[in-house]
Amino acid sequence: MLFERVAIIGVGLIGGSLSLAARAAGLVGEVVGLGRGEANLATALERGVIDRATREVAAVGPVDLVVLAVPVRTTAAMARALVPHMRPGTVFTDVGSVKGEIVAAVEGVLPPDRPFVGGHPIAGSERAGAAAADADLFRGARCVLTPTPRTEPAALSRVAELWRGVGARVEEMSPADHDRALAWTSHLVHVLAYALARAIVDDDPGHFRLAGPSLRDATRVVASAPELWQDIFLANRAAVTEVIGSFAAELERLRLAIETGDETGLFSLLQAARAARARLETERR
Amino acid sequence: MLFERVAIIGVGLIGGSLSLAARAAGLVGEVVGLGRGEANLATALERGVIDRATREVAAVGPVDLVVLAVPVRTTAAMARALVPHMRPGTVFTDVGSVKGEIVAAVEGVLPPDRPFVGGHPIAGSERAGAAAADADLFRGARCVLTPTPRTEPAALSRVAELWRGVGARVEEMSPADHDRALAWTSHLVHVLAYALARAIVDDDPGHFRLAGPSLRDATRVVASAPELWQDIFLANRAAVTEVIGSFAAELERLRLAIETGDETGLFSLLQAARAARARLETERR
Repeated sequence: MLFERVAIIGVGLIGGSLSLAARAAGLVGEVVGLGRGEANLATALERGVIDRATREVAAVGPVDLVVLAVPVRTTAAMARALVPHMRPGTVFTDVGSVKGEIVAAVEGVLPPDRPFVGGHPIAGSERAGAAAADADLFRGARCVLTPTPRTEPAALSRVAELWRGVGARVEEMSPADHDRALAWTSHLVHVLAYALARAIVDDDPGHFRLAGPSLRDATRVVASAPELWQDIFLANRAAVTEVIGSFAAELERLRLAIETGDETGLFSLLQAARAARARLETERR
Repeated sequence: MLFERVAIIGVGLIGGSLSLAARAAGLVGEVVGLGRGEANLATALERGVIDRATREVAAVGPVDLVVLAVPVRTTAAMARALVPHMRPGTVFTDVGSVKGEIVAAVEGVLPPDRPFVGGHPIAGSERAGAAAADADLFRGARCVLTPTPRTEPAALSRVAELWRGVGARVEEMSPADHDRALAWTSHLVHVLAYALARAIVDDDPGHFRLAGPSLRDATRVVASAPELWQDIFLANRAAVTEVIGSFAAELERLRLAIETGDETGLFSLLQAARAARARLETERR
């Protein structure tokens, strides 16, 4: 057993799935879930996602591991609220999609004897809540851990072992490298999906009647909670605005090739994209 | 039986699936497939997609229905090549993703006694060829028919019956309305996917290692054949460049809200997108 007692702060898709998976693998003992929604906590208890539920910070601890699985921009505030109730040595980690701003903020509120390990499992879906928790969610998925000079090596290796134990492929990156890569592979994808859905409905909502599988796939993520993504975009503001700009330049290149009827140029852009996309399948192995 | 003898010109995913489905439903008698690739035609024969295969235009007819299922910008040339081998009364139809330019070009090469019905079943995938043909591909899908003042009503209703017989929901639109709607719901989606794959690989191919489900979904269509999409973008050039421009303006609105940290503005853009996307599910029913 890696952690005798664990607190999941935010029993949603990610926090709930980690709990389910870690319990199934025998990596953790008692799990307490802290949440705001009574119905969601009841579902979590019913489904065996957690052993005990509370809505009070003071009733959480003491535990050996705190998993912060709340919207990214509330992570540091939750860490600060929990500190007085946790013993020295309690390991803190998070699962947020942005690391730079969040890791710095959490390190700023935790005393040195409460080690923090920034983490981000790259998994999920547009489903939310304990009802969607899935013990297999992280199987084969990447989990990025973002140690800093302040990260305690022992805590880092225990958190890495937890993620490997639930089937994830762990790798380490700096918070800044993580944020720039994720701005490209996830945050931009969400921005495009939001812009696409809005632009279509602005032109004519009736267009959706003719939606084929490509539009459905491209906008599926728009069903995610807007408050989560507002948080992510703003917490990773610099990288997200930069990659939107680069993307817009690439889009303009394609638009020009189409507008001017540049068959050769257009064909080579499309072929390069196809070759690039093929790497997605090989790189992920 | 609706059509005793049918020619499928281009035995790919769409042509092959229509043939399989129409044969399964007893709507057609003998089906001859015209194609360029010997291996693909052999697969089509083996899988029972067609009864007879040929690579020679002169060996196709006579038939009662010609289904043009070739890249959009070769449609009219194929129609022209087939005319001398077809009897008066033979109905021509197509399945192309662009209608304005294609319908005008085909009507320009067919004599009045070879009626033409422009069509576009909104179905498909990134898979290609007779090996991917699927008798259920059109079940529940929309199929747009685009009659013009020159369209013969009897031919239109027989082609509509064929599509309804394979499970599609048929609706009529003008070629121009079709092209503008599809520029939004399909062509733009493909442009964005191509631009996204290229922009990411331009920045760093290593990013793909961290791809989650959202990036995979958003770029799946990039695996389609570039020559098909080059054709579609150029054949629908005016509408495609217009919608890319409108999309770019929407994207810039989101970028600005993120860059300036406009929480309220950003949240309302995301919420509007989510509400818009929810219509996709209801509108498609």
